[in-house]
Amino acid sequence: MTYERHSVRRMTGYTPGEQPDTLDAIKLNTNENPYPPSEAVMAALRDTPAEALRRYPSPTSATLRRIAAEAHGVAPDQIVATNGGDELLRLAVTTFVEPGQPIGVADPSYSLYPVLAAVNGSPVVASPLDGNWRPGADFAAEMNRAGVNLTLLVNPHAPSGTLLKASEIATIADSLNGVLLVDEAYVDFVDPELGHDTVRLVHELDNLLVLRTLSKGYSLAGLRLGYGIGSRTVIDPIARKTRDSYSVDAVAERLAVAALSHRTHARETWRRVREERARLSASLSHLGIECVPSQANFVLATVPPHFGGGAADIQQRLRERNIYVRYFGQPRLADCLRVSIGSPEQNDALMTALREIVG
Amino acid sequence: MTYERHSVRRMTGYTPGEQPDTLDAIKLNTNENPYPPSEAVMAALRDTPAEALRRYPSPTSATLRRIAAEAHGVAPDQIVATNGGDELLRLAVTTFVEPGQPIGVADPSYSLYPVLAAVNGSPVVASPLDGNWRPGADFAAEMNRAGVNLTLLVNPHAPSGTLLKASEIATIADSLNGVLLVDEAYVDFVDPELGHDTVRLVHELDNLLVLRTLSKGYSLAGLRLGYGIGSRTVIDPIARKTRDSYSVDAVAERLAVAALSHRTHARETWRRVREERARLSASLSHLGIECVPSQANFVLATVPPHFGGGAADIQQRLRERNIYVRYFGQPRLADCLRVSIGSPEQNDALMTALREIVG
Repeated sequence: MTYERHSVRRMTGYTPGEQPDTLDAIKLNTNENPYPPSEAVMAALRDTPAEALRRYPSPTSATLRRIAAEAHGVAPDQIVATNGGDELLRLAVTTFVEPGQPIGVADPSYSLYPVLAAVNGSPVVASPLDGNWRPGADFAAEMNRAGVNLTLLVNPHAPSGTLLKASEIATIADSLNGVLLVDEAYVDFVDPELGHDTVRLVHELDNLLVLRTLSKGYSLAGLRLGYGIGSRTVIDPIARKTRDSYSVDAVAERLAVAALSHRTHARETWRRVREERARLSASLSHLGIECVPSQANFVLATVPPHFGGGAADIQQRLRERNIYVRYFGQPRLADCLRVSIGSPEQNDALMTALREIVG
Repeated sequence: MTYERHSVRRMTGYTPGEQPDTLDAIKLNTNENPYPPSEAVMAALRDTPAEALRRYPSPTSATLRRIAAEAHGVAPDQIVATNGGDELLRLAVTTFVEPGQPIGVADPSYSLYPVLAAVNGSPVVASPLDGNWRPGADFAAEMNRAGVNLTLLVNPHAPSGTLLKASEIATIADSLNGVLLVDEAYVDFVDPELGHDTVRLVHELDNLLVLRTLSKGYSLAGLRLGYGIGSRTVIDPIARKTRDSYSVDAVAERLAVAALSHRTHARETWRRVREERARLSASLSHLGIECVPSQANFVLATVPPHFGGGAADIQQRLRERNIYVRYFGQPRLADCLRVSIGSPEQNDALMTALREIVG
């Protein structure tokens, strides 16, 4: 016997990256920040009063929205707080896409997008990225022709780390008939000298919804805290209608406020990750493994044919050494490994293991 | 311009009970436990390591499911952990109800149910409760005739506190063609001498999904931790397909494990709430305000006509005294106030204020 609705019966669920139980694993497979959260966050955790647990949280996460609004130069009602960025992705589908209507993505991309589409019974319009992992000039027109009302773009792109400029995002959003959600999960790791800023676009483009998360940039993947930034046209229906009541808990809000109020520590982790990104890319290249130039906290490394048995084999042999990297095994990524940027010690351990495996 | 899908455009969002900012408010309006969580929970909070924040949580909340399974005498794969009980309600709709197909409820009931139905574009089949706030004998047949594939029943009932026996739940579940979700948000406050136990029914009824939450019974409303218990027929599609990845954060799982592993403190709060429930009901009755016999941590009090200007007026005048109770202002509840059971001091303050208002 089954009671599932048709779309759910037919679908396969999301497969998250492996989360090994052991604390000594070198985990370069799910893009966590290698450095711990700030002392301000830990103090906010320790000082959480029992009353904050006993009582319901702010249903709208009012304090967090105010702090995030200040940080981004928008009004608090242009922010919606969510249980991780993933909740915002789901809510965008629920809010803007009729059941069964198509959802647009670039291909390849974050593997959760097609799962969220499947729950909604929505076909996926997947536009192939070009050889430089960038959307084609026809991207928006393709989505419009297919009747897409929600397009999901991760920028910097995962799993390549390629960055689209804000002006390119603006052109796409401006050309789309529906909503463009730009998933900026990795944006904190972009080189600051690029002056990259997509958020300012929400003042002129009412169909742009920018996703932010504290998981990577603020070392808070365990906490599940994300938020959306946009015009009230896209924020209001989520914040006032489709979002679960109380979806952000009191501890998460409290720690997120501490994180966003004391950014010096986080900024220093971004700087170190960028330094290690350059160093690791050079080391891999030296070994014959080339990486796509990345603006994220990971690199996509192409394993040459028969190099230690191929990408899947190398992933497995690293795993035997307690080092975890991500292998996707899908078209265009069959010879690739996605490697999160670790601490200098972790990256050194990875390089040592790789030299053993391919040497 | 609007981008919302039709069902969202048409609907109105959920209105949560007021959450005043002041910590000195006497908050008897959203059914929090009046006592703080246990010292074991507070210690687990303070001792949370930075690594638990930095890394992603267990995607399946594996430890919590194991502990909850032990507590309930089921297998871990008969448990799905959710971001509050509210997430399980939403997931049940997403998983079992085709967009636009009807959802069954008893009327009156938890006011979130129709909102979740509206998001799904689903009409609500609302079966009126009888004069004792109980479903009619025809309840299941009515749902079946309407083509309902998901029926939501809160037990003990909100806002009356009336309890259906497990055998009555079994009869309804057995008669339904679809899934029955029994929302046991308040079940911890049932008199233990009744031996009430719905969970054992999941071993024989594959369409029964029992909702539990730590919000009330364990004084953790701020934490957002709920879970579902059922057969694998109803748990699997939620746990493996429709649930957001990582929807329960690491701190919430950790504190929930501490709460369920040390239940003595929570049990003592349940005993005190039951004592106060009896005392408050008697005091209200003495004042001429009768309460429905309640097995929950609240009472539904009927305000006699012109008694201090009626229920809405009394709510407002209590609010001016910094005492919050819930007024629904809907058919059958227009002369009622729902009063959460507070501490003895809070209940005394409520009675003093009421005597002033009606005296």
